Parts: sequence; structure tokens; C-alpha cells
Amino acid sequence: MLRVGLIGYGYWGTNLFRNLSLSPRFDIVAVADQSEKRRAAVQPLLPNGRVTPLASEVTDDPDIAVVFIATPISSHFEIARNAIRSGKHVFVEKPMCATAAEAEELVYIADRQGVVLMIDHTYLFTNAVQYISETIRSGEIGRLCYYDSSRINLGLFQPDVNVLWDLAPHDLSILDHLLAEQPIGVAASGYCHVNRHLPDMAYLTLHYPSNVVAHLNLSWMSPVKVRRIAFGGTSKMMVWDDLNREEKIKIYNSGIQFQPEDRRAVIIPDYRIGDIYSPRIPDREALVGVMEHLAHVIAGKESSIMDGARGLRIVRILEKAQKVLDEELEATRAVGQHS
Amino acid sequence: MLRVGLIGYGYWGTNLFRNLSLSPRFDIVAVADQSEKRRAAVQPLLPNGRVTPLASEVTDDPDIAVVFIATPISSHFEIARNAIRSGKHVFVEKPMCATAAEAEELVYIADRQGVVLMIDHTYLFTNAVQYISETIRSGEIGRLCYYDSSRINLGLFQPDVNVLWDLAPHDLSILDHLLAEQPIGVAASGYCHVNRHLPDMAYLTLHYPSNVVAHLNLSWMSPVKVRRIAFGGTSKMMVWDDLNREEKIKIYNSGIQFQPEDRRAVIIPDYRIGDIYSPRIPDREALVGVMEHLAHVIAGKESSIMDGARGLRIVRILEKAQKVLDEELEATRAVGQHS
Amino acid sequence: MLRVGLIGYGYWGTNLFRNLSLSPRFDIVAVADQSEKRRAAVQPLLPNGRVTPLASEVTDDPDIAVVFIATPISSHFEIARNAIRSGKHVFVEKPMCATAAEAEELVYIADRQGVVLMIDHTYLFTNAVQYISETIRSGEIGRLCYYDSSRINLGLFQPDVNVLWDLAPHDLSILDHLLAEQPIGVAASGYCHVNRHLPDMAYLTLHYPSNVVAHLNLSWMSPVKVRRIAFGGTSKMMVWDDLNREEKIKIYNSGIQFQPEDRRAVIIPDYRIGDIYSPRIPDREALVGVMEHLAHVIAGKESSIMDGARGLRIVRILEKAQKVLDEELEATRAVGQHS
Amino acid sequence: MLRVGLIGYGYWGTNLFRNLSLSPRFDIVAVADQSEKRRAAVQPLLPNGRVTPLASEVTDDPDIAVVFIATPISSHFEIARNAIRSGKHVFVEKPMCATAAEAEELVYIADRQGVVLMIDHTYLFTNAVQYISETIRSGEIGRLCYYDSSRINLGLFQPDVNVLWDLAPHDLSILDHLLAEQPIGVAASGYCHVNRHLPDMAYLTLHYPSNVVAHLNLSWMSPVKVRRIAFGGTSKMMVWDDLNREEKIKIYNSGIQFQPEDRRAVIIPDYRIGDIYSPRIPDREALVGVMEHLAHVIAGKESSIMDGARGLRIVRILEKAQKVLDEELEATRAVGQHS
Repeated sequence: MLRVGLIGYGYWGTNLFRNLSLSPRFDIVAVADQSEKRRAAVQPLLPNGRVTPLASEVTDDPDIAVVFIATPISSHFEIARNAIRSGKHVFVEKPMCATAAEAEELVYIADRQGVVLMIDHTYLFTNAVQYISETIRSGEIGRLCYYDSSRINLGLFQPDVNVLWDLAPHDLSILDHLLAEQPIGVAASGYCHVNRHLPDMAYLTLHYPSNVVAHLNLSWMSPVKVRRIAFGGTSKMMVWDDLNREEKIKIYNSGIQFQPEDRRAVIIPDYRIGDIYSPRIPDREALVGVMEHLAHVIAGKESSIMDGARGLRIVRILEKAQKVLDEELEATRAVGQHS
Repeated sequence: MLRVGLIGYGYWGTNLFRNLSLSPRFDIVAVADQSEKRRAAVQPLLPNGRVTPLASEVTDDPDIAVVFIATPISSHFEIARNAIRSGKHVFVEKPMCATAAEAEELVYIADRQGVVLMIDHTYLFTNAVQYISETIRSGEIGRLCYYDSSRINLGLFQPDVNVLWDLAPHDLSILDHLLAEQPIGVAASGYCHVNRHLPDMAYLTLHYPSNVVAHLNLSWMSPVKVRRIAFGGTSKMMVWDDLNREEKIKIYNSGIQFQPEDRRAVIIPDYRIGDIYSPRIPDREALVGVMEHLAHVIAGKESSIMDGARGLRIVRILEKAQKVLDEELEATRAVGQHS
Repeated sequence: MLRVGLIGYGYWGTNLFRNLSLSPRFDIVAVADQSEKRRAAVQPLLPNGRVTPLASEVTDDPDIAVVFIATPISSHFEIARNAIRSGKHVFVEKPMCATAAEAEELVYIADRQGVVLMIDHTYLFTNAVQYISETIRSGEIGRLCYYDSSRINLGLFQPDVNVLWDLAPHDLSILDHLLAEQPIGVAASGYCHVNRHLPDMAYLTLHYPSNVVAHLNLSWMSPVKVRRIAFGGTSKMMVWDDLNREEKIKIYNSGIQFQPEDRRAVIIPDYRIGDIYSPRIPDREALVGVMEHLAHVIAGKESSIMDGARGLRIVRILEKAQKVLDEELEATRAVGQHS
Repeated sequence: MLRVGLIGYGYWGTNLFRNLSLSPRFDIVAVADQSEKRRAAVQPLLPNGRVTPLASEVTDDPDIAVVFIATPISSHFEIARNAIRSGKHVFVEKPMCATAAEAEELVYIADRQGVVLMIDHTYLFTNAVQYISETIRSGEIGRLCYYDSSRINLGLFQPDVNVLWDLAPHDLSILDHLLAEQPIGVAASGYCHVNRHLPDMAYLTLHYPSNVVAHLNLSWMSPVKVRRIAFGGTSKMMVWDDLNREEKIKIYNSGIQFQPEDRRAVIIPDYRIGDIYSPRIPDREALVGVMEHLAHVIAGKESSIMDGARGLRIVRILEKAQKVLDEELEATRAVGQHS
């Protein structure tokens, strides 16, 4: 069993803790959290382990082989760097870092140290994403034309991220997993309704060399929770509605007839053209698969599908999009001052 | 009864014909259409009227008081101009014209001639839009923060419009009706999947001086038909799902608590916070209200809510967005040639 | 073209009229209705035909070949008998008659006269029922175990039928079409909430020799309109939700594993076990198919799938169920008098 | 803290265990289960308690104040009787007993011993049932006319109960809670598809003195899971869809207009008449409330809303319904032998 230290015992940290406890591959021996209340909560669950306010007591502990980091994003870099320098494998909550420069350095030093650096893009281990990935690779839906995501809900305002950094990593990790290419264009716009400096709605549009377009509708301001992605292929289309228990994924046998350019088709609209197929997607906690994958990667049995390089690519896109948001907010404020 | 000539007897023309036939205020005396098949279809329904291939036989007929135009958009300007010059009231299918310059001229000459120029923004006469408009004006949902529209379906590729000109006018007319302001920023991106020169997906983002943001997700490439608009207010939120027969409009009693800037709220997410209210929205054909409105405006009893000035404002936004799309397509092609 | 007289120009009569007008096989030459208002409504649509208050002017007219009857059910028998005696083919709105004795006589005399007697069980000509029928016959879902129908909505209280006679004929005609057997047991219970003598809710359970059970939940008292039938087969199950535009029929690949009797299975429940397939069911007006079928049956080209014999079998079941309701209401009232 | 022994550590027993562990009012000191595997599962969670195969070691333990029974129903009576005789408070999983005679004896001896006897009708402590109960009592929906329940899903075949005893207790406990009366008539029919002797579908109809009718559609044979109850009132109607996360309860402002008997109304049907209101029903685990209630009842601070008398009334109805099912199955088999 790999001896594990967990840093951060908030919302996601408790999920990691629970899954680590149930895993036959990992043994939690230490938890660090700055909050006294959280330390009091975890103590009874770790009768023989160390519970400490200091992250360094985990990153420096020679008995620990793997460090899990579930702290606010601004602290990821320093904690992860310390752990890597101490020769530990590191598992970091998404998004990987606050800047691409930080992420690059982590990738570099992990590589030099020969340790595993993995980013917790949990969605990749859901049955839904695995099914979608296989379906696209099999060629069943034809060439992918578009990815259209609505990821909206009410709240969970967090102190150190905006809606872009909170929600976009899910889509970006899925896109990185599905596509063998990086976006050549990133358009973005964001809006601050609650806190003047913290976007709570954002629209992101990514253009890829192969002409795939990805659009992300991200919001903390929606009264309804939606987790819905449409994948448009040249021969079929696919919709993943993650909140639909009965039909999580639907495959629409409704390709657009591609017409020769000189004949412009007039297609009578219908609710749909063609049958619908909805595969059974069994529920399971994705973190179980994540834990197994991590153990296998550390053991050298699998190559990672959520390594630091992927985490870095995602942070690069977030950074680009954030730059656009910042310029836009700047411009809006300039206008606002005159009006 | 006002004597009416109808030019164009295609999909929308037949709807206009049917509603005109049932209206006690209008009397159809002539129909023009270039298609022999369509003329043959309408002839039996107009035993005592004139059916002709020539639009000019309608626009020049001294016995006709009102001309309805339901032809392809590229022909709107010339037909409408001829009708206005002949002193007729004119009713034009949306969008009003292919360019803002054309629309401006129509507004100008209609004003000079003293005739009514009305654009068929039918949605304004649905019970749903009227309910939404009253609710927003009453202050019930607080200050409007965002307008988020999904208007997606499969097909109806048309020879002379792209998805932007086909679908956006609906949202633009509703926005023009709800807001007392014009957008100060128009971002757009569009994609061609079927015909290389004809966008079949487009995203449009409009910024308004009062900080309202409007986002339009427009597509002819979706396997599922969606007609859904979310209106985010500071105290309540509202969703109009036009295809939901039972609950067309839902009002969510779930405002975001606006926090003082130094206190950043952490709100635990839930599917919703607060109750939901769904008013009864009786079905009725909006064109019935459109016809009445037109008759009242001609009679001088009402001022128009869909006059040429509104039509012009909408064409201006479409034109701006199209310019962005064109530049973008140009740029993509340039990239494509090198790759 | 067959010359047609229509008796009854109410809700259903107008539907029949519209479809007859569009049919190339029928020519409406006369309409009878006791209501002056309805006669005034139909007159302009029948400029060269006869409009009369007297059913006999239609049933006795030697120029008429087919009589359509869409009057209140209590009058079906007499009008149909007169038409049949005059040698006309007869098409009767469902349910066929108010009693099985009446229905038997009509079948008998139609047979003797050699005329076609058809009952308007329109549902049999919907694409949904035809798809379901073929699917069951193909063996795809295995042996049919149950038929569970919810046919509930608010209102349409009618002067001369209760909820049983209004709604059950739809299910009974579908059952008669799908099964090659008649029920051996009919259980029923009914409830009067609005009018003391007119059940507005009823539950009907039919047992068939092959162990199929059919259950009908019928109501005029439901705030929500539901038209949903589940078909349970030994290998698959099928749900027809007639109000679901996108997925009218779903086939669940979720058969119950039939266990040897000595091994009682413990199956962990799940939302479903297996995939779902939803065939495209194009919309079309079923009456178009009904009209074609009638013309073909009259021409001797098809044998009828909704003939008098079927209508009679359905009235027999209604009569049995009504008898149970009457006894039950009697018993309840007896109890009520003592309490 | 009350010292607790739990007998039965299967599906429901583990839920009880988890809630007891979290409750500040109870202290689990012993668990009995005949299965070695289950004992091995619970042992680590109860380091200082007794884990035993023998129920008697729990019921006879003088240190235990409350016995929780979550064993197969056939054993409820004997275990509960032993516990009561030893002077313990007893909490029994639903349904209370296999026969009304057993339930009567438990009520009698618990009363004589002066101990609390409570039946685990957990639904009564859901926020949904509490909201519904208050709404009906407030008079908001008028007089209750009907209760129409669909409680259907796939499987969970259990060795010692049929679908009636498995699913009906939920509805019967809710009905007993909402109505101040007992049914005067119980109609039932059941069907065996998987095991010849074990009904897996059942329809139950209950008539109450005040004319309320309750109908239960119970099935282990449905491909779709449904948990939906409609409550029809004279002025409003209410639907509880327990699987709808966003709108668990909807109140329809759509009363039927009650007509004077001599005027039979013809109401044009619509999808609904009137607005819909959906209150926020926060999620919470009902067992938390159950535990609190039990502690309060034992402490004499509350009178029980799920005492033995209620459990007994429910078993009486189950027994009556089972008798009908048995006669029916008998009759069907008799017929089957001749055919």
C-alpha cells in the first residue's frame, strides 16, 4: 500500500479522504489543514495518523510516498513544488495552478525528479466520458464538428476562483482528452454580477485547427442546474445530460445531409430526424477509477491520461481566456466611468 | 375592411394568407408569387381575386391599401419601396432588409409618404413575451442582469439567409422590446458545416450600457429542438421554454444575495434556492394579435410596437454581427490555406 | 369519388369534414346537424351541398353512398340502422353504441345488407400504434405480460358519456388490435366527484386467458394531461408517451431474468438495466389513414381492422365494466344513506 | 444517550446503523446478524461493541434500552416480542409483522410493559410528506377527493415479501397519516410474472367513508422507476414526484368547477387550467428525523406518529388485500387447469 498524505480537508478533500480510505492501494497516514474545525472533524477518522495544521509536515515526511493536494488553487504551486522536491508523487486538485508559468515549473521538476504528477480531472474517469470517448474514436458519429457545453448552476462562490477557473477545467480536460489538437483561437467574455471583480458568468469559444468549435456557457447565476454537452458529428449527434438519471447519453441518428455546394438543401425542420439510442451508463464514483489509475501509473503499469502536461495545457487556455476577460472588464470600466 | 395584396406564398406567406382570411379587418384581393405551383395552390382559395407572377401587379394596384411581403429577404427592399411609393401600407416579413442602408431608406420614404411600415416580429405578440415583458416592467425580478437564449434545431436551410439572419431576429426583437437601450458591443462567431459560405451555427454576445449581457446560441445543427431563454434578475430569475406545454414560463424565487464587496459569499450550491412559480400561458396564434395591431395602427388607434425603426435597429445589429463573422471566416480561410 | 353525408358537425364532425374535404376518395354532399349555429358554420364550406337539421335527409338520400355519424352516442344506433337499411356504408364515431344489443343488431343488419360498417377507432392508424403492433408481432419484446395505461386529463365533461365510455375505447381498441383474445375477467371501479351520477375517474383491470393483464387509469380529474402506456414483455419493455414529441416510444432493453422457481432472485434495483432505443415516429394525422382504409374496404381491396365486430366487442367490455360501476355506486349510496 | 442494539445488518440495517452512529441521542452497543459476512462488515465499525449471530444476545442484554429490528418480516414478531418482554423499547422495520394477529399482540404487550413500540414508516419524516400534510390540513387544496400513486420500478425481488408487502406500506402509512379514517373497502389484484407464487405487480383500490378513493399502482416489473402521487382536491391538485429534483411537489391551481347537478358542464380540455406553484423542498435524510422522533417519544416529550397502532392498521389492510390476491390467484389457477 502506498502511504499517503492529504493536504486540504475541505469539500473535495473529504471526497478524496473517503475514496482513499476505501482503496486497497492507498493508506492515509497524515492530513494537513489550516482550519482547526476541519482538523477536529478528520481526527476521529484517522486514529493512528498525524493531523496537523502544517502542509510542510506532510510534504517533508520521509514515510509518505504520495501527496494529495486539495487546497485553494493559489497554494497549489508551492505545496506541490515542496512535495516534488522531497521526491513524492503528487496529485493536485484541478485546476493545476494559478498560472501557466507555475504549471510549467511543476512539470519540469517532476520530470527531473522522476515522480508522478497527476491532476485531478475526475470527469475523465466517469463512465459517461469513457463511453463518449470510445464512441467518437470508433467513428460512429463521423467527424466531430462541434462541442457545445452548458455548465450552469447557482452559486458556490469561492474566495479564490472565478466561474471560468471553477467550471471550465471540466470541459477543457474533456476536450483535451477527445481531441488530438490544441485550440488556435480562444474567445471569451465574462460578467460580474455579485462581486465587481469576480466574473460569475463566462462564455468561452475555442477554435481548433480541424475546424471543431467548442463553446462553453459557464454560469454561477442560473436558477437551474444544467450539465449538458452536445457533440455534433457529421453522421450522428450525441447529447450528454449528466443530471438525467435515465438517459444520461443520447445518440441521435440525425446527421445533416452534406450537400454539394451548388445545391442548397431546404430541409423541413422536425423535432428530430432519425432514431435515438441511449446506452446504459452505470453509475459509479469516478474517483474510484482515478485512484486505481494513479496507483497503476505510479507502479509504471499505465501511462497517465491526466498528467501534468495536460494540466499545463488546460491552465494555458484558462490564462489566455482570463486575459481576454481582464481586457474586456478594463474596457467596460473605462466606458462606465464616462457614462 | 382593408384591401390587401400578398406577395410571396411560401411557408410564411401561407400562414399570413390563412390569418388574413380569418381576420374581419382585411380582405385579400391579390396574391403574387413567381412559382407556378404556388399560384396553382392559392388560386382555388381566392376565387374572386387576382393571382399573378408579378409583384408589380400588386404594388401598383390602386385598389389595394396594404401590401404584405413574404418573399426572400433580398427582394424585400425593392418590393417594399415600390409599394410605399404607390402609397400603400406595407407589412414585411422579418428580417426587414438585407442591409441597414436599405432599411433606412424604407423608414425614410414611408415616413415621407405617411404610410405605415411594419415588420413582422411575430414573437412580440405571443402571450409568453407579453407576460415576460409585463413581469420585467413590474420590477418583480429586480434589475435584469442577463438574457441567455438557446435557439437551436435541425435544419431548414434556406437559400438566402444564414443561421444568424434566420434565428437572431427573434431574440433581437424581444431584446429591443424589453430594453430601453441599444447594445454598445456586439461579439459574434459563426461556423459553416454544411455549406462553406453559409454559417449554420453562430454565437452572439451583446453588451448593453446598463450592463445587461445577452447571449444567443443559434444553430441549425442541433439534433434536439430547443427554444429556451433565461432572464436573470437581481431578485428573481425566469426561464421561458417555448416547447414546454405545461410550464412554458417558470419564475424562480432564487435571487443571488448581493454581498458587500469585502465579504465574499460562499453559497452552498443546490438545484435551486427558493420556490418556483409557473403562470398559465394560454396558447393562441400570435399572428391574430399581429393582424389586429396592424389594423389599429393603420386606423391611428395604436402606435406600432414593431415599426420600421425597430426593424432597422435589428438589421443594424445583424449587419454588425455579420461583419464580424465575415472577418472571422476570412481569417480562418487564410489560416486554412497555409495549413 | 364516394358521395358522403356527414351527420353531426361538433368537435369530431369538423375533424371528419376537414379530412373528407382533403381526401381524393370522398366527396361530401350533405351535412346534418340539429344546431342552427353549427349549420351556419358549415354552410359556407359546402356551397353546393345540402345542409339540413334532419339526419333522415342524409340517411335516405339515394345519391349518398357513405354515411359518417358523429353524433352523441345515444343516437348512433338509430341513425346507423336507418343508413344501413337504406343500403349505405356507415362510419360511426367511437364508441359504437350505447349497448351491446344495439351494436349486435347493427353488425347483423350490415352483414345482411352487404354494406361496410366501420367504427372510428382512430388510434389504430397512428404511427405509434402501428409501430407498437409490429414490434410486438415481431417477437422483439418477447411474450406480452402487461399493458398499463394512464389516460388522464382535466375535463371535457360531456353530456352523455362518463369517463369510462369516453376514454376506455381507445385502450380497448388497441388491446383488441394487439391481442388475439378477449378478456376473461373485467374488474372496475369508478368515482363521481363533479356530478353524482357521472363517474369522472375509473380504474379498469382486464384479465386475459394468456395471463396478460391490462390496467387502465382513466380520469377527467387530473391537473396534468397524461397519455402513457407501458407494455411489459418477457425480454423487453416498451413505453409509449404520446405527449413526448422527441421520444414518443422508448424500448427498454431490460427484461426481467426469469428464474427457476426454486431460486428466488434478489435483483439490486437500478433506474434501468440495459439500453434504451427510441425509434423515430413521424407525426401524421391518423384520420388520413382511416379515410384511405375505409375507401379500400369499400372497394373490397382490404379487410377492415376496425369493423363492426370489433366495435361490438369493445362495447361488450364497456357494458360489463359499467355494470360493475353501477353496482358499486349502488352499494356506496346504500352505505351513504346509513352514515 | 440511549444504548441501542441493532438486529439485522442488511440493506436497511446499514442505513439504521449509519444514522444511529451520527445521532447524539443513541449509542450502538451491539449488532446481531446471522450472516458471517455481514458480521465481518460491521465489526470494524463497532470496535467496542458486541457483534453476534444471536438476536437473543441483543434482546436479553440488560444494558440495552432500545432494540432496532431490521430482519426479514417473518421474524419481526418473535424478536420484537422477546425484546418487549425484556422491557426494551422496540423499533421495527416496516411492515410491522406478517399478520395482523401478530401485530395486535405486539401492541398489547408493549402497552402492558409500558415500552415504546415504533414502526419505521420513514416516509412520514420526509420534507415532502410533511409539506403535503400541512398543505392538506391548511385547507388550501379543498377537500381531498383522490390519492393516486404510482410506485413502480425494476426488481429488488426479496425472498419473503411480494410487491404488495414491499411497496404498499409506504402509501398506507402516508394515507393513515393524512386521513382521519380507515378504508371501508379494499379491492386488489395481483400478478406473478417471475415467480409463480410471488406477485410482482399489484393494483390496490381503497374506499374511505368520506368518499376519498386511493389507488396504488405497484410494480417490480417497470423498466422505469416512478415514485409519483397525485392528490386531487376540490379546489387545487397536487403532484409529488419524488424523483424530480427540481420540482418535487407541484400545486396546480386547477380545481374542477363543481356544477349544479342539472347543468352539465362542457369544459374544453387544456393541458392545465391555472398556474402552478412548486415549493422548495430541501433534501434531507428522513431517518435523521425518525431518530429524533423516537428519542423524544421515549423521553415522553412527543406522542408517536408511527406507533404500533398505526403499524397494526397498515398490516390489517395488507392482510385484507393479500386475501383478495390469494383468492384471485386461486381462481386463475383453477381456470388455467381447465384451459
